[in-house]
Amino acid sequence: MSEHERETGLFTGSVLFGGLWSDGEVTELLSDRTLIGAMLEVEAVLAEAGQVAGLVPAAAAAAIAAAARGLDIAPEMLAAATARDGVPVPAMVQRLRRAVTGEVAGFVHLGATSQDVLDSAMMRQAAQVLAVIDRRLAQLVARLTALADAHRATMMAGRTRGQIALPVPLGLRIAGWAAPLIRHRRRLTELQPRLLVATLGGPVGSLSGIDPDAAARLEAEFAARLGLTLPPMPGHAQRDGLAELGSWLSLVAGALGKIGADLLIMARSEIAEVRIGGAGGSSAMPHKRNPVRAELLVAAAREVAGRLGALHGALIHAEERDGAAWTVEWQSWPAMAVATAAALNHAGGLLDDLEIDVPAMQARAGDGDDRGSANRFIDRVIADASHADGRLSGEGEDA
Amino acid sequence: MSEHERETGLFTGSVLFGGLWSDGEVTELLSDRTLIGAMLEVEAVLAEAGQVAGLVPAAAAAAIAAAARGLDIAPEMLAAATARDGVPVPAMVQRLRRAVTGEVAGFVHLGATSQDVLDSAMMRQAAQVLAVIDRRLAQLVARLTALADAHRATMMAGRTRGQIALPVPLGLRIAGWAAPLIRHRRRLTELQPRLLVATLGGPVGSLSGIDPDAAARLEAEFAARLGLTLPPMPGHAQRDGLAELGSWLSLVAGALGKIGADLLIMARSEIAEVRIGGAGGSSAMPHKRNPVRAELLVAAAREVAGRLGALHGALIHAEERDGAAWTVEWQSWPAMAVATAAALNHAGGLLDDLEIDVPAMQARAGDGDDRGSANRFIDRVIADASHADGRLSGEGEDA
Amino acid sequence: MSEHERETGLFTGSVLFGGLWSDGEVTELLSDRTLIGAMLEVEAVLAEAGQVAGLVPAAAAAAIAAAARGLDIAPEMLAAATARDGVPVPAMVQRLRRAVTGEVAGFVHLGATSQDVLDSAMMRQAAQVLAVIDRRLAQLVARLTALADAHRATMMAGRTRGQIALPVPLGLRIAGWAAPLIRHRRRLTELQPRLLVATLGGPVGSLSGIDPDAAARLEAEFAARLGLTLPPMPGHAQRDGLAELGSWLSLVAGALGKIGADLLIMARSEIAEVRIGGAGGSSAMPHKRNPVRAELLVAAAREVAGRLGALHGALIHAEERDGAAWTVEWQSWPAMAVATAAALNHAGGLLDDLEIDVPAMQARAGDGDDRGSANRFIDRVIADASHADGRLSGEGEDA
Amino acid sequence: MSEHERETGLFTGSVLFGGLWSDGEVTELLSDRTLIGAMLEVEAVLAEAGQVAGLVPAAAAAAIAAAARGLDIAPEMLAAATARDGVPVPAMVQRLRRAVTGEVAGFVHLGATSQDVLDSAMMRQAAQVLAVIDRRLAQLVARLTALADAHRATMMAGRTRGQIALPVPLGLRIAGWAAPLIRHRRRLTELQPRLLVATLGGPVGSLSGIDPDAAARLEAEFAARLGLTLPPMPGHAQRDGLAELGSWLSLVAGALGKIGADLLIMARSEIAEVRIGGAGGSSAMPHKRNPVRAELLVAAAREVAGRLGALHGALIHAEERDGAAWTVEWQSWPAMAVATAAALNHAGGLLDDLEIDVPAMQARAGDGDDRGSANRFIDRVIADASHADGRLSGEGEDA
Repeated sequence: MSEHERETGLFTGSVLFGGLWSDGEVTELLSDRTLIGAMLEVEAVLAEAGQVAGLVPAAAAAAIAAAARGLDIAPEMLAAATARDGVPVPAMVQRLRRAVTGEVAGFVHLGATSQDVLDSAMMRQAAQVLAVIDRRLAQLVARLTALADAHRATMMAGRTRGQIALPVPLGLRIAGWAAPLIRHRRRLTELQPRLLVATLGGPVGSLSGIDPDAAARLEAEFAARLGLTLPPMPGHAQRDGLAELGSWLSLVAGALGKIGADLLIMARSEIAEVRIGGAGGSSAMPHKRNPVRAELLVAAAREVAGRLGALHGALIHAEERDGAAWTVEWQSWPAMAVATAAALNHAGGLLDDLEIDVPAMQARAGDGDDRGSANRFIDRVIADASHADGRLSGEGEDA
Repeated sequence: MSEHERETGLFTGSVLFGGLWSDGEVTELLSDRTLIGAMLEVEAVLAEAGQVAGLVPAAAAAAIAAAARGLDIAPEMLAAATARDGVPVPAMVQRLRRAVTGEVAGFVHLGATSQDVLDSAMMRQAAQVLAVIDRRLAQLVARLTALADAHRATMMAGRTRGQIALPVPLGLRIAGWAAPLIRHRRRLTELQPRLLVATLGGPVGSLSGIDPDAAARLEAEFAARLGLTLPPMPGHAQRDGLAELGSWLSLVAGALGKIGADLLIMARSEIAEVRIGGAGGSSAMPHKRNPVRAELLVAAAREVAGRLGALHGALIHAEERDGAAWTVEWQSWPAMAVATAAALNHAGGLLDDLEIDVPAMQARAGDGDDRGSANRFIDRVIADASHADGRLSGEGEDA
Repeated sequence: MSEHERETGLFTGSVLFGGLWSDGEVTELLSDRTLIGAMLEVEAVLAEAGQVAGLVPAAAAAAIAAAARGLDIAPEMLAAATARDGVPVPAMVQRLRRAVTGEVAGFVHLGATSQDVLDSAMMRQAAQVLAVIDRRLAQLVARLTALADAHRATMMAGRTRGQIALPVPLGLRIAGWAAPLIRHRRRLTELQPRLLVATLGGPVGSLSGIDPDAAARLEAEFAARLGLTLPPMPGHAQRDGLAELGSWLSLVAGALGKIGADLLIMARSEIAEVRIGGAGGSSAMPHKRNPVRAELLVAAAREVAGRLGALHGALIHAEERDGAAWTVEWQSWPAMAVATAAALNHAGGLLDDLEIDVPAMQARAGDGDDRGSANRFIDRVIADASHADGRLSGEGEDA
Repeated sequence: MSEHERETGLFTGSVLFGGLWSDGEVTELLSDRTLIGAMLEVEAVLAEAGQVAGLVPAAAAAAIAAAARGLDIAPEMLAAATARDGVPVPAMVQRLRRAVTGEVAGFVHLGATSQDVLDSAMMRQAAQVLAVIDRRLAQLVARLTALADAHRATMMAGRTRGQIALPVPLGLRIAGWAAPLIRHRRRLTELQPRLLVATLGGPVGSLSGIDPDAAARLEAEFAARLGLTLPPMPGHAQRDGLAELGSWLSLVAGALGKIGADLLIMARSEIAEVRIGGAGGSSAMPHKRNPVRAELLVAAAREVAGRLGALHGALIHAEERDGAAWTVEWQSWPAMAVATAAALNHAGGLLDDLEIDVPAMQARAGDGDDRGSANRFIDRVIADASHADGRLSGEGEDA
């Protein structure tokens, strides 16, 4: 690791600020080492699929797969070449070729282009990241719906445009925090097959140089072994999956930002209907408790939304491959995923430590107990959550 | 119409520049008059649903519905009140109340808040706008897949990172233009039930003041008559549907931007593999033909993507209703829809007038005719388009 | 005016919503008609400068100038050609040529390209728009500093991170609203010579086809008569002036957004330290007063900031002229200017109608009257405002 | 360093991709360790200024300054507290207090709040970062103007809207690359006094608890010793300096993006008027040379512009301190500075390795040698650069 990398700071790689917007679990899934491992696994699978397709001798496929899975390539080894080539694949393939004996080397990376390897490997990483995020989403939905259920009778002053309007159960507001998250889990199941695709198109996306019948077997096997969907055609220049991913992350972060914004108001000194435990200290006023994690939810939502424009701009991906647009993607979506995942953790922590001052809340709501249809709405949100959960976890009846 | 409105220019309302990024059909669907009509229709339906729910006497419901459908309220009549109230609904309701006789007036707008009327009305407009956009999408997909089919054997120099790589059929590139659009049509069917919702929550979203059983009938009837989905709970502060809409519009605009960017390169003087007919004149160089419509596709993609951040930022919608966040929505999504719809028209026009210089293209591609799996990929994209079309138009077998 | 233009709505051209984010005075300065007039004036000045440079006979220059200044071209007359050409200039020049007699026509538009005319004309409009905005800024600064001065002794609970911290004079907070606006006026004086430039480069920016000595006289005279700066070279592809303008507008809108955000909190029901007069009505809760104009300040700041990305993206302006990047500019900065100007009006209106509940404010602040250095800071901000005002209005002594 | 930090990847902290968009020199200036050192220096200076102001005994000031400058606090030691408090200052102050003897501890951080220390320290870092960026800018301008000078007679086909228009000297295009960079250097001198400010306001920005006369001496001495400007009042909630910085970085990155976009076209296979040396290899097509660094200029411009919206959104900084808005700043500007600095390095590298194929260029330009006023424009740009350089480096006579 070079000196300057060890000295990161003030941004994503910061140790000092990492607890504010980074996330160990997801960062690990998106690490250089994980990516290199994923790329090598793609090369291994490519060789194995090549064997199935009759393009690679069995011994060569086995040798390549073993070498790829056994290689330990540190990021530093590929850094200079990546800066020169714009992608780490050529230098990595070169190392893999050197790791196998002479004739076998010719079967390494057969038919593929750098983008096939990098895109497929990144989608393997994305699949794991999304599994983590969805797990956290499911947990958060469960906690919010339980909290909504518990506060059906806690009347709170409803506020519209910053003005106290009529009383409303706290449980309804909380159900309103959960409802979009439930939809986000559904959106995730819809977008995954579009996003988590295998890319195998070769230099110009036509799998040129390979007999079409063999190519058909090759790509099917390649995708199946990687656990990725096979799209109608290789998506070298079709980036809608990643733009949709970014939008989805922003939907999630935005839903959490709304929770944060609400809690920041509820925790204000003049309102004090909730207290945010584990809250931050002040260097000048030790008695203060700062609602740090609620702020972080708002900040993450702003940050992730703010990066959407550049990521969607990368949809304008010229010709068969556009290096500038492609690079913008790498700068955007992984950081957006980390920020969103970190925000989910903060939201969970907030709920852990949240103290609701029910008497204060009810006092401000006044005597009225007109819950209207709140219970009915809460029921529907809870039912929607259960339904989504059943279906999303594969237990559902509605195939 | 006030004087300054008649004198709009240099931006959305411009007559001069309207042909570049505006769209008559969609602008009409999003006009002030259409919105006022839609809001009055919502009031009419609310009264009728109130009758079904036993909340409004039949005669009153009929009188309100007739008055609402008969009123002709010019935008100018509501403009000052809208500036004061932030929404046009209070002044409109006042006019509607005046249009019915004394006791009936008390049944106007029963149980609803301004946001119920405005959100529901806007989603009626959005439904129509999306129908137009999807129709144009379907037409564009049909033309692109036909063009891809026709150019399976037209070899073109494939370009990656701006460098000539290997030959690839033009048809494959064009299939790659169509493929995301087909997915966008699928995405649209998925997002519509989430977006096109009826909103009926009353002042704080709980339908307070109404007997819950009657409220249940009321909202079901209200949504059914408006042709909108009934969400688990009113979405006053849940804005994910609109953020998703904005992202979807940007996906569509971005896919068109990629087509535009490719055509701008192909139409360059030094390349000249296509000519863009109907192209623009120059004041200084009359011989030039400027690829205006291709440029407009790129510009629209940049513009629509650039507005995503603000629209997603409006997900941070505080408490039961947040006037600032709500206002940002109105400034964003309609303009994004118009720009996207206009871009779809430009894309259609581009294809109408596109002249492909097949010999020039093939000459640069060289002798090679290695189509690889291009035909297979084109077949799959065409099949995907047909499948999507069948399913999306309701003829599909895969229920 | 075409039918669809008359039916605008839900966005910039809306009559219904115009009071929320449009602005009659600035819209008029940016209107189609104003632009056409400015472009014709540029042609007139070009002919006159051509005479000074010895390129155009006196009679021809006079004839062209008279014709250009006398022509009344409605936007509708140029709309179709603009859609075809991407710019309105070729069709306008054609009309101007037809308006003069045969030989004179050859001297119309001499040496210029469309971009020379359009960019120069737009900067004439921008100069007027900025004068309006600066006038409003100066007025707002004057009112805020007076208000700060008046509330040096009004103690308010200072809030950090949403928590009540220590008492602070209201006047200091208000001085903090004024301080950035004073800087923004200084920034404006710095950016104007960079932004408000004459563009005259001809087809490829080299004033080709014209004798260099004559060209030197031509461009100097052209710029001087238009009241615009002459840059080192024509800025056809150098768009930093407009990107800086957009950033400046966002700085102004953001400073107003902070005022709006603070007032939204101060006007909350639970806090009620200010009341926003002229506040909006509610359709469901007639007793409520909605802080519409404060919300609009926040919404404008979000909207204007959100458009920065696309406008700055247009800095990537390819080769000698890039139609796509250029179009993005037109979609962005005029709308940003209108939104900022409208926000300045709303801010003024807010202050007109603002009622400060001093006893309520002081009661929450507690007994303490530790103003610290607040008076000193307020003095400095007031002095800075006066200094800026003197200097900016040309009366200043500090050359 | 925690495990997950060592495993960064796919984003700013990546070793693998660091060569594409990171920058060792600037990353070091923005590192955690540099920030902690800068914060400790701020505490040292605060104690020393306190002595000058008569607030801190000489012995205590000396002890604090010595302790602060001697402490070695690793980022890991403050990470958990930062995650809890939202800022690293309280935990750092606690360590500093422990490092001095009993009574002296009471004089540590006297009168200051966390934001005073963090903002002042960050502006010390920003000053150094901007010095690096300006140095690179000056070097790039020098090289571009020399190149423009050398290519006054190299005729190139000028292109407008992607179409070959008229011949233009390559030198004029290159002068057009330099001209905005020269203006950016001027802008930098203008913005620095607004940005590089000392912040010292105490808990609510009024320097409460300190005698006003002593406070006046304190803040003047504090700013002078830090080499930072003293603003009219503490800018805890006035964030225009940072938003302006972000915009400026985007102006620089955008100017480089234009160079990159032009070179990507010039280096295309079909055009081949330049070759980008040191260009990237391809895994599938070893003969290709990919214009990686030109792509990186475009990608950086898109990325930096895309982050402007969020950073400007942080202008809406509520009340006396807004934790959410403040956090967004940290996520934005340092990463934008690194990307811009890296792009400047890439631009320098591109010019090092650029091979211009003059015969190919001239052949396409045709026989014409109408340079128009190009030489005059190039002269003016060169003069402007020299003038700026003299003035900016402090040698200038033009007061």
